[in-house]
Amino acid sequence: MFDARQTFPEDAATGGELHHPDAAELDLPSLLHALSDPMRLEIVRNLACSCDGELSCKAIPLPVTKATASHHFKVLRLAGVISQRDEGTRRISWLRRDDLERRFPGLLDSVLRAAQAEEAERSATPG
Amino acid sequence: MFDARQTFPEDAATGGELHHPDAAELDLPSLLHALSDPMRLEIVRNLACSCDGELSCKAIPLPVTKATASHHFKVLRLAGVISQRDEGTRRISWLRRDDLERRFPGLLDSVLRAAQAEEAERSATPG
Repeated sequence: MFDARQTFPEDAATGGELHHPDAAELDLPSLLHALSDPMRLEIVRNLACSCDGELSCKAIPLPVTKATASHHFKVLRLAGVISQRDEGTRRISWLRRDDLERRFPGLLDSVLRAAQAEEAERSATPG
Repeated sequence: MFDARQTFPEDAATGGELHHPDAAELDLPSLLHALSDPMRLEIVRNLACSCDGELSCKAIPLPVTKATASHHFKVLRLAGVISQRDEGTRRISWLRRDDLERRFPGLLDSVLRAAQAEEAERSATPG
């Protein structure tokens, strides 16, 4: 099984490429683990709703430190949920919709629907 | 958020009822966390495939100790994935299909499809 918790050269700030697992490496427990955190669900929801399908990390407002936010993006990338590239000082992220749909048909959409419904419920709750 | 890691009186062997969260309490991160473990996915897959939709814990062969297996069943129950009842010395489990489908439409089915596909892939791999 692919272990999203393992480290890669980039961790040691070697200036290496950002690691992205191959589509064939994606596994269900790692995917579900990556999606099982409210902050990471918020990132995925924002990416799904963005006009052109991609956003810089800074464009997604999360109530956590920059280091924690970076960690969440990395967990999503190493589980194959998102792809990332660097543009100058910005890191751009987008969902790996096609890879996920091929490997786990219907799963991302049903998670997004549920996350959207929970968000709507929260917004409707006074206080 | 409902926290599946919290404890309930039954933990202290008080002989209390098995705790089952209300359908309205089910939340997406806890559900995904409960499903993000290979052993727990195996339990869910077995329950989904069982003839009458329920199985005793012992009927699902898991390569872990009895205590670890019990822990996995409990995580699933406290996240609202399964219901359980005691019959003599046996603890019977079944999926909360209707509650899950109402709250997270399509999610359980897409997870089950993906788990089934991964299992078929594993079985087809020599060695």
